[in-house]
Amino acid sequence: MFGGNFLLKGRTAEALYHNVAKCAPIYDYHCHLSAKDIYEDLVFQDISALWLKYDHYKWRAMRYAGVPEELITGKGSSLEKFTAWAKTCERLIGSPLYHWANMELQTYFGVESILKERNAEEIYHFCNARIKKEALSPVKMIQSSKVKLICTTDDPLDDLAFHKLLRTERSLDFMVRPTFRPDKALNIGKEEFLDYVGTLGTVTGQSIHSYSDFMKGLRDRIEYFGTNGCLLSDHSLESLSYSPTSEEEVSDIFLRRMKGHKLTKEETERFRQHTLTLLALEYHRAGWVMQLHIGAYRNTNGERFKALGADAGYDVMNDFNILEPLAQLLDGMEGQKGLPKTILYTLNSKDNLVLSALPHCFGEDEAAGKLQFGPAWWFCDNKEEILRHLTAIANQGMLADFVGMLTDSRSFLSYVRHDYFRRILCSYIGELVDNGEFDADEDILAGIVEGICYKNIIKYLGDSVK
Amino acid sequence: MFGGNFLLKGRTAEALYHNVAKCAPIYDYHCHLSAKDIYEDLVFQDISALWLKYDHYKWRAMRYAGVPEELITGKGSSLEKFTAWAKTCERLIGSPLYHWANMELQTYFGVESILKERNAEEIYHFCNARIKKEALSPVKMIQSSKVKLICTTDDPLDDLAFHKLLRTERSLDFMVRPTFRPDKALNIGKEEFLDYVGTLGTVTGQSIHSYSDFMKGLRDRIEYFGTNGCLLSDHSLESLSYSPTSEEEVSDIFLRRMKGHKLTKEETERFRQHTLTLLALEYHRAGWVMQLHIGAYRNTNGERFKALGADAGYDVMNDFNILEPLAQLLDGMEGQKGLPKTILYTLNSKDNLVLSALPHCFGEDEAAGKLQFGPAWWFCDNKEEILRHLTAIANQGMLADFVGMLTDSRSFLSYVRHDYFRRILCSYIGELVDNGEFDADEDILAGIVEGICYKNIIKYLGDSVK
Amino acid sequence: MFGGNFLLKGRTAEALYHNVAKCAPIYDYHCHLSAKDIYEDLVFQDISALWLKYDHYKWRAMRYAGVPEELITGKGSSLEKFTAWAKTCERLIGSPLYHWANMELQTYFGVESILKERNAEEIYHFCNARIKKEALSPVKMIQSSKVKLICTTDDPLDDLAFHKLLRTERSLDFMVRPTFRPDKALNIGKEEFLDYVGTLGTVTGQSIHSYSDFMKGLRDRIEYFGTNGCLLSDHSLESLSYSPTSEEEVSDIFLRRMKGHKLTKEETERFRQHTLTLLALEYHRAGWVMQLHIGAYRNTNGERFKALGADAGYDVMNDFNILEPLAQLLDGMEGQKGLPKTILYTLNSKDNLVLSALPHCFGEDEAAGKLQFGPAWWFCDNKEEILRHLTAIANQGMLADFVGMLTDSRSFLSYVRHDYFRRILCSYIGELVDNGEFDADEDILAGIVEGICYKNIIKYLGDSVK
Repeated sequence: MFGGNFLLKGRTAEALYHNVAKCAPIYDYHCHLSAKDIYEDLVFQDISALWLKYDHYKWRAMRYAGVPEELITGKGSSLEKFTAWAKTCERLIGSPLYHWANMELQTYFGVESILKERNAEEIYHFCNARIKKEALSPVKMIQSSKVKLICTTDDPLDDLAFHKLLRTERSLDFMVRPTFRPDKALNIGKEEFLDYVGTLGTVTGQSIHSYSDFMKGLRDRIEYFGTNGCLLSDHSLESLSYSPTSEEEVSDIFLRRMKGHKLTKEETERFRQHTLTLLALEYHRAGWVMQLHIGAYRNTNGERFKALGADAGYDVMNDFNILEPLAQLLDGMEGQKGLPKTILYTLNSKDNLVLSALPHCFGEDEAAGKLQFGPAWWFCDNKEEILRHLTAIANQGMLADFVGMLTDSRSFLSYVRHDYFRRILCSYIGELVDNGEFDADEDILAGIVEGICYKNIIKYLGDSVK
Repeated sequence: MFGGNFLLKGRTAEALYHNVAKCAPIYDYHCHLSAKDIYEDLVFQDISALWLKYDHYKWRAMRYAGVPEELITGKGSSLEKFTAWAKTCERLIGSPLYHWANMELQTYFGVESILKERNAEEIYHFCNARIKKEALSPVKMIQSSKVKLICTTDDPLDDLAFHKLLRTERSLDFMVRPTFRPDKALNIGKEEFLDYVGTLGTVTGQSIHSYSDFMKGLRDRIEYFGTNGCLLSDHSLESLSYSPTSEEEVSDIFLRRMKGHKLTKEETERFRQHTLTLLALEYHRAGWVMQLHIGAYRNTNGERFKALGADAGYDVMNDFNILEPLAQLLDGMEGQKGLPKTILYTLNSKDNLVLSALPHCFGEDEAAGKLQFGPAWWFCDNKEEILRHLTAIANQGMLADFVGMLTDSRSFLSYVRHDYFRRILCSYIGELVDNGEFDADEDILAGIVEGICYKNIIKYLGDSVK
Repeated sequence: MFGGNFLLKGRTAEALYHNVAKCAPIYDYHCHLSAKDIYEDLVFQDISALWLKYDHYKWRAMRYAGVPEELITGKGSSLEKFTAWAKTCERLIGSPLYHWANMELQTYFGVESILKERNAEEIYHFCNARIKKEALSPVKMIQSSKVKLICTTDDPLDDLAFHKLLRTERSLDFMVRPTFRPDKALNIGKEEFLDYVGTLGTVTGQSIHSYSDFMKGLRDRIEYFGTNGCLLSDHSLESLSYSPTSEEEVSDIFLRRMKGHKLTKEETERFRQHTLTLLALEYHRAGWVMQLHIGAYRNTNGERFKALGADAGYDVMNDFNILEPLAQLLDGMEGQKGLPKTILYTLNSKDNLVLSALPHCFGEDEAAGKLQFGPAWWFCDNKEEILRHLTAIANQGMLADFVGMLTDSRSFLSYVRHDYFRRILCSYIGELVDNGEFDADEDILAGIVEGICYKNIIKYLGDSVK
């Protein structure tokens, strides 16, 4: 199991994977790793700390299986939690978690058996011994995975201290870059917004009394992030609507919020839409890529949110209609000549057709794949959804110009997701060739696979990552 | 055709089916069979009465093929109707009706040929002779299908007389249990609501003047159903919306309706949402399972509804967005500590992702699969949709804890749908194993298949069905 | 590549294709070809004029690949454009454009190689030489493709002069019929509506002062189209909503629009819904087929629309919910005994289930497949979506009564799309047979394939096309 040809169907797939994809470097242009962890580079505590402490994917599966919360986020011991996970994992047929978990054990620890309840304790100790013996740490994992670029996800108010230290004090053979993610600045309806504006004022050394002060503050942070190597921005769009608005109206909405007034849903949407459009103009100027992550629905279970906070495995994908507001949002940016390179992600594959067809409407001379339908993400990061995503792009557009995979992960072991993706990619392409649906032209095929593995994203992000 | 390996792909699928699934008993936890028919246990009149009299699935296909209504629900003779169906059926390529029909003829009557216009008359007489000779009746069908549990679907006002008689006067080797389906109590907007409330008062021996009287009446019926062996409730949700409301508002809505006022759509929705939340609390207390059947759109053709009434084959699946109102409804129940075990069904597979991801948010210690994404149902009860459903659960969650198939049928022949489902299940699992995507561990695989076939539903419904 | 068994999986598929589908005639019941072009029948200028001048499918792909607009719709030379397309095409893995392009080169020009940048110039000259040598022209293409019927798409105000000339002055072995497409008459909200009404008055020789004048004008044009051989109407529904309205209300909406008032979105929808319902009655009387093309979202990019106008490759599929308004619209027509034969198309396969289940609700004695879910269209015209469409019809209904493929094209080379579709159809059916899911009854299978290829559409359109 999980042998060299895992997931590879047919000879073309095997050849493309082994000759082209397998050894290609990784440019992980979106993840949630911590620059601090990379900088400090501590040897991992044990396999449970590494595997189970922050992984809400695994938590969800364990909860579904009825594992007591004690053994998930509670006070259970490291070994107890590991065993509870093993007992869950051995039955996870058809789940990417089963594949990832076993690929990670095999790739990073040399475990040959499939993880099960009955071998859990043995594997637990084996991995821990390996961690100690080889002093496994973030940098070791990154390097052994052939990672060349890591783009973290950062709040505009972050001082990027560890990004600076990584640049000045470490000479690593991979880059670590921040990403500008101003969700808190756009969520004007949330309680913490006023505090956020206050801190933005403090950090940028100017008190904020108006919408134009506010935008100036954000522009300052964009410049700061740019100076510190930022290449992309990122936005989580948990709803989508579009209605024409104006600088005046949005300024007024902002002022009323500053005075503590409650806003309507429509007002918060207009504020976000207008601010996002202005930010897009800045991203465009800076040559950044804008990422729009559409469709998360967060903290579904109010009781558990009170107990555990956010990002604890209680999120799902939403199912609202996206085409009209999204098309209008992008056209609004295009109309002001401020539409940056953009990656559109969805959590719900019902959007696949729309997101694979829309990018063609916003092209630019000499900019291949200026707008991208981003890879299958989070709940969609599994074999079926990856195939659906690739098929949608191939049918509607130009798969060959796709910027490829990312981990979106909080774990240093998740680089196997790139390997997983590449195997599926090579199988998809290989089957088309084997079925006579694409010419068996080795050069063109190798070019397509290399492009999607890493060359397209390098070209997309620009010279600084070459 | 329809040989022993029908639908089974690969050796693992064959082994799992023949060694594990084929002989597993059936726990049909949701159907529309009549307790009266089982109690009376009359020998069937003829194959047309058995096959064509209530089967709106077949009616739909015949109408699409242009068969005159005379030969569907009209005065055509039994043989004429059978022949019209045969003529339709022989061309139903890719339809589950083709498979079910021929599986039923083979399983229950020993017919070896595929049903066609040219052999229709012969098969008609052959089956009728068999019915007579073997005195085929409901109980015979149920027993020969290895059915251990039948959960019917019943109105709260039903006196469950035949359920009682079945329990007291028959000693059967299978259980027949009622299910509490209070749709009429929740559809406050419908004309018949006032009559319904009146009868509820009569049946429970207390006149109903207020919302709290009304709820007391329903609680009484829940107790009555519980005493008579009920294990589940069932609701058809033909729309979904959520807005915060209160006992006061809902009481007021109820009173205005009692006075004959017309309610807005929003008021009827609030009434339903609040009442459903209160009922959930009762189901939770009673240890029942709550079923939510989402997305039917009924009586599409007004003229035909006038002519033939409901359930005549003029229903379709709706396509409204479900995530936000459903998540909020469930969270409302969870917030009052009253979320029962729940099975969520959809008629539109665009909801598959949402319904396979949402259950994880509402788990409970030691309760494996507390919330379930129910099996592909009605329009979705076919090979493609069953596979999509299994794949969605496997990707998002824990297929191994799925409570499995039901018939949802009005016919005593529909148990072949369990066989159909099991073949598809074994193929799905077998292919994962054969492709190296899951370990070929016989014990774990057998455990998963047994679980989905019947053990999970036994555990889910509790000790009384063991 | 693209050999005789291209896309055919298994022996049944091969047999059905080669013995039945391959040589079947084409009845192209919906396209955008020009009757004028067919009448004039000029030898094509060159392969670029034929291939790239109006083909917004190719434009979209080229734009996505970053080809400068100069080489798409701009002043680039014919060869430069051809080469830019070749360079794009060679990388279009998984795209139907790759298949269509190479099938067209092979079928109409005898090109044996796959089109690539490196052979582009050679193929360009080869095709141009062939065009000259064989004097390739519209009629030659149509005849060599075994086309028997072409239904063009025409505005009600069109005088159909070229349709008349084709009928009176040419003796062709294929029919060319107009289709009544009154979108401009239904889009009351658009600026050009008043002019349109004015011209309708002029053309029909009666000034239009009221809604009933307006409807009389449209009825006159329906009669005119009928006299000139029209068999179908066609409507593009770019939104869908339904609310009860009345002749009075709609008359008033019309009058206010005539006076230059601005209408609300709801008013324009009511006008359309009511007018469409009245037109349906006329189509029903005339024995025409009504086509409803649902879900295009046009002119996404405002800047490009200003520069290039409509139909330039800036359209996408919308994603609104369709069931309720569509079911109510059809039921409204049925209620007035005016529901014609109807073909429902969607651009978004999320609607497949709904559109394959809804037709059964509106059948008619002896009218097989009276309502049809039309073939996968435009963005859905690719292998995956065609398969999804066939599967949906087969699951929900009666694939055997499907009226089959059309080109929807502006190009005389697009008849290969019929061949493409037929190969996929035969593969779909063949696999069901080879998997034991349908009886290997040669007569029934041949009947199904012949029906879908051309016999069903002949029967559907009626005696005049036999």
